[in-house]
Amino acid sequence: MSASPDTGPSDELVADVFDRKCPSRGVMEHVGSKWGILSLTALDQRPMRFNALRRTVTGVSEKMLSQTLHTLERDGFVHREVHTSIPPHVEYSVTPLGHRVAVKLAELIDLLEDTLDESVAAQEAYDKRVA
Amino acid sequence: MSASPDTGPSDELVADVFDRKCPSRGVMEHVGSKWGILSLTALDQRPMRFNALRRTVTGVSEKMLSQTLHTLERDGFVHREVHTSIPPHVEYSVTPLGHRVAVKLAELIDLLEDTLDESVAAQEAYDKRVA
Repeated sequence: MSASPDTGPSDELVADVFDRKCPSRGVMEHVGSKWGILSLTALDQRPMRFNALRRTVTGVSEKMLSQTLHTLERDGFVHREVHTSIPPHVEYSVTPLGHRVAVKLAELIDLLEDTLDESVAAQEAYDKRVA
Repeated sequence: MSASPDTGPSDELVADVFDRKCPSRGVMEHVGSKWGILSLTALDQRPMRFNALRRTVTGVSEKMLSQTLHTLERDGFVHREVHTSIPPHVEYSVTPLGHRVAVKLAELIDLLEDTLDESVAAQEAYDKRVA
């Protein structure tokens, strides 16, 4: 991570989300999206089939969840396992890399939930100020 | 955080991003957005004026950055200070709460940057598989 736009030249190629051309930015965007955060942290609790995940990530449409899972699978965070039972079913789980990311996301969620009162108070004060 | 849709009834009101009606979900969405993550982590390095921040968060439009800063200020993460110098100028910084969130975001960014090779390899394998 580099938040400074004027770092000197370097021969070393390092990932930098502040560089709009770095592929890490796309990955960050997928993981940080509302459905990305919720899907990864939910699957980190336990592997789930599509419909169970959809019931857990309340409010997500079938299309958005499907798209989110494809993206997270492509980035290496989610594993899609087809079980050839009768009837066959598909189960989603986190990869070891996905687990590491999910742990960070859960910490972020815990902080935002724990401090929600502060955020709501700030929102109310802001709305009064600009009203 | 609760990833289980069938927790029993409780008299206690706790924030839960998995509940679509909980205001914590909106806050999570603001913080997790591409421009939210980048703006908060950049401002956590040092307070900045709008144009300096826009140069740091490469690729963001004036309109999107302005909207992002308003949202983060409303949620209590960013402080907007008007300096009555001549000419007057506005400086943005993180609040103590914003700093706590930015620390978590920086950890997430560091992990995604450090493991980008794995994600890129997964993307290439995925694209070959579905091609």
